[in-house]
Amino acid sequence: MNTSMIRKILGQVLMSEGAFMLLPCLVSIIYQEHEGFVYLIVALAAGLSGFLLNFKKPKNTNIYIKDGLVVTGLSWIAMTVFGCLPFYITQEIPSLIDALFETASGLSTTGSSILTDIEAMSHTALMWRSLTHFIGGMGVLVFLLAILPSSGGSTINLMRAESPGPSVGKVVPKISQTARLLYTIYITLTVLEFILLAAGGMPVFDAICSSFGTAGTGGFGVRNDSFMSYSPYVQYVTSVFMCLFACNFNFYSFILLKQFRKAFGMEEIIAFACIIFASVATVTVNVLPQSANFENAFRNSFFTVSSIISTTGFANVDFDTWPMLSKFIIVLLMFVGACAGSTGGGIKVSRLHILAKTIRKSLKGYFHPNNIKKIQMDGRPIEHEVIRSVNVYLATFLAVFTVSVFFISFENLDPVTTFTSVAAAINNIGPGLAGVGPTCNFSQFSDFSKLIFIFDMLAGRLELFPLLVFISPDFYKALTGSAKTRIKKLKD
Amino acid sequence: MNTSMIRKILGQVLMSEGAFMLLPCLVSIIYQEHEGFVYLIVALAAGLSGFLLNFKKPKNTNIYIKDGLVVTGLSWIAMTVFGCLPFYITQEIPSLIDALFETASGLSTTGSSILTDIEAMSHTALMWRSLTHFIGGMGVLVFLLAILPSSGGSTINLMRAESPGPSVGKVVPKISQTARLLYTIYITLTVLEFILLAAGGMPVFDAICSSFGTAGTGGFGVRNDSFMSYSPYVQYVTSVFMCLFACNFNFYSFILLKQFRKAFGMEEIIAFACIIFASVATVTVNVLPQSANFENAFRNSFFTVSSIISTTGFANVDFDTWPMLSKFIIVLLMFVGACAGSTGGGIKVSRLHILAKTIRKSLKGYFHPNNIKKIQMDGRPIEHEVIRSVNVYLATFLAVFTVSVFFISFENLDPVTTFTSVAAAINNIGPGLAGVGPTCNFSQFSDFSKLIFIFDMLAGRLELFPLLVFISPDFYKALTGSAKTRIKKLKD
Repeated sequence: MNTSMIRKILGQVLMSEGAFMLLPCLVSIIYQEHEGFVYLIVALAAGLSGFLLNFKKPKNTNIYIKDGLVVTGLSWIAMTVFGCLPFYITQEIPSLIDALFETASGLSTTGSSILTDIEAMSHTALMWRSLTHFIGGMGVLVFLLAILPSSGGSTINLMRAESPGPSVGKVVPKISQTARLLYTIYITLTVLEFILLAAGGMPVFDAICSSFGTAGTGGFGVRNDSFMSYSPYVQYVTSVFMCLFACNFNFYSFILLKQFRKAFGMEEIIAFACIIFASVATVTVNVLPQSANFENAFRNSFFTVSSIISTTGFANVDFDTWPMLSKFIIVLLMFVGACAGSTGGGIKVSRLHILAKTIRKSLKGYFHPNNIKKIQMDGRPIEHEVIRSVNVYLATFLAVFTVSVFFISFENLDPVTTFTSVAAAINNIGPGLAGVGPTCNFSQFSDFSKLIFIFDMLAGRLELFPLLVFISPDFYKALTGSAKTRIKKLKD
Repeated sequence: MNTSMIRKILGQVLMSEGAFMLLPCLVSIIYQEHEGFVYLIVALAAGLSGFLLNFKKPKNTNIYIKDGLVVTGLSWIAMTVFGCLPFYITQEIPSLIDALFETASGLSTTGSSILTDIEAMSHTALMWRSLTHFIGGMGVLVFLLAILPSSGGSTINLMRAESPGPSVGKVVPKISQTARLLYTIYITLTVLEFILLAAGGMPVFDAICSSFGTAGTGGFGVRNDSFMSYSPYVQYVTSVFMCLFACNFNFYSFILLKQFRKAFGMEEIIAFACIIFASVATVTVNVLPQSANFENAFRNSFFTVSSIISTTGFANVDFDTWPMLSKFIIVLLMFVGACAGSTGGGIKVSRLHILAKTIRKSLKGYFHPNNIKKIQMDGRPIEHEVIRSVNVYLATFLAVFTVSVFFISFENLDPVTTFTSVAAAINNIGPGLAGVGPTCNFSQFSDFSKLIFIFDMLAGRLELFPLLVFISPDFYKALTGSAKTRIKKLKD
């Protein structure tokens, strides 16, 4: 393993986090809250640690796949640890595990909370909470690739490890260009949402935090009732933007490059739109009898479907009181998740699309055994390696999910809470059903369970392998291997 | 498609079913029940229909993969339809859908019932119910292969379509020999269980029915409380035999061939034993506080774990009252299921074993990218085609499961009942949790839901594709294709 390069990138990540932390400091000045001082100290500490790690220049700048995985996993763990410190030091969250949970939930864009009274928090803390969504949404490594000068040809392995989906699509040839394009779209959409929310009468602070929460498909709000008390206009705008941020960002790239036919022909986008349409229609009809009127039923359905499939997790209604059919659709959408190459979580539409194609091909194969045509997507054959990785991902996802439910079962809660709490964590949703429904939170769980959720949230955001490498014996073998080489070099 | 061969085999299947139906006729004579007359009429009707279908000799005796799938699907549907007639005509089950449900549940070795008072049924009906488990357990096509003279080289496609597991292992070279060996083991084990049960004081009629239910890993009993009121000895014997029938039958073949090293080295058998051991240990400790004593806790755990992992579904305790951890293990074991090449259902231990190996290989691959060694099982590399089929099976299984839960959601029952009723049907278990727990039954569901369960039970037993072909457009194209060819031939 290239430990010097891992060290260097880790340093840059911590410096970035320190820089991001200056925004809540600014907020504390505006609202004259004394918590800001703690944020400043932690920002400086993160910056200094990062600077020291980044100081020594590595000789070998190659980043192999394993290095990409390891540095991504380590970066997100380090960001979670530094990011939780202000919550803990200010004692706004008195338990360290709770502070870690809240930060992991923020960075992984899950949005599950252990807070029982959000409105009692300082503006500084609320801003940092929502900002972690924004950082985690597009990813800090992609951010580094966007702002730093291109350092070599193997940075694709950083992008691959942090970006969701079965294959990283390159619309423009260079990685740094791709990263810059992604962040440009990301920031533009966020600003656009902020303007529309603020124009609709939402308080500016709420509008900033909500835009960050939507952009990262996170789900932290600033009110105890999430979106229930905001105006219908605000709810509609947020619904639309939740869908927009859950789209594959290649869609916007194609639009910017004026390749409209390519953009609107993307099979993943079409499938995503169909799923949303079918779900909203079914849920609207299903909840109509218990709604005030059709508009109310439609708005609640549209908001909830957008919120869940985008894995944001805002709530404008307590969907735990809905009929079984709607509840099933919600849980199903949790697992479907957003598009690949978006800021959302879940299994991803493109993976399920590919799986559906393999099933269809298999059925067809019985009747046409000599047909060896490859499965196609967007007019191009899908590489065997991509199909293999999708299959391995599904199996690994189910394995991590099952082991997590096993551990959470020790809480001895009801089956629905147990099952949906893990589903909400690993798919980065936020709320689940029953004991973790939209009106409840995660404060009831033991510290052990919270650690499981922290693992699941980060593993879900990073698509499992950047965290799973740390439980693989091969990682430790590789680590001792490079340590031995270094010691040998020092001896020579 | 070779429709003449499909017709011929379908005829043989119906004749076999007619022959099997003579056993309940015999029971009705012993117990002097007038229902036996109906069974005799239906047996003759099935036999005559089969005779007519079988009459004309096909020119082409080749059975291709698609023919194997189609004839398997059709055979099981036809057996269900004929098999339900005695229940309906005698009015012991007054609804036709209920009679179909009970028969599909029997043949697919599920063991879910719509009966609310089993003890009110005639001995004739109870015998037929349990006998359907025995017929469905090893399969009627395998039965035909065992008793009929070998008709050609492609009968492997019949065996493949009906036998569970990712690949059909041939211990002996010929298909007919394999089928005969399987049935010999099957009948020997069944007789052995009957002797042990009867010797332990179980009434002879109960012992025969219970042995059939265990052999097919079915789950129909003859008492309303399933196994709760039988003696501990009977419960232990049944527990052991449930495990034995859930083992890969290659294990017994190797033992018969005195290849003990091969038998006890089978990775699937080792994994199966480990899962049972770990589950029984965990559940025993978990239910100890609510049990009378350690023996009671151990017996209930052993019986339930054996019953669920073998997908039998007998109950000696209401496990719906157990703590969450134990309930989770039970639901997990429903999906794990038995070994490939056994009479049990579920996803199968060997498939999960292969999936686990692909995950491990994938993790290893990050650190050793040049290692292209194939995954091994039992000392031999697993063919790429087998891994592909395991992946497709998992995806298809999840798809069928999800669509079924969607339809059952229309019942608007609680999530646990909705989820576990489908899990119990598709994995051929019998009972689930909550509204379909061990003390409940499936009589509460609408006819529409019962049809979904009938599909799931048969699809689960036949490993999906023999039923899924009927919803594939390619099947109907192939059907019209062969019809056209025939009309053309007639014209010429």
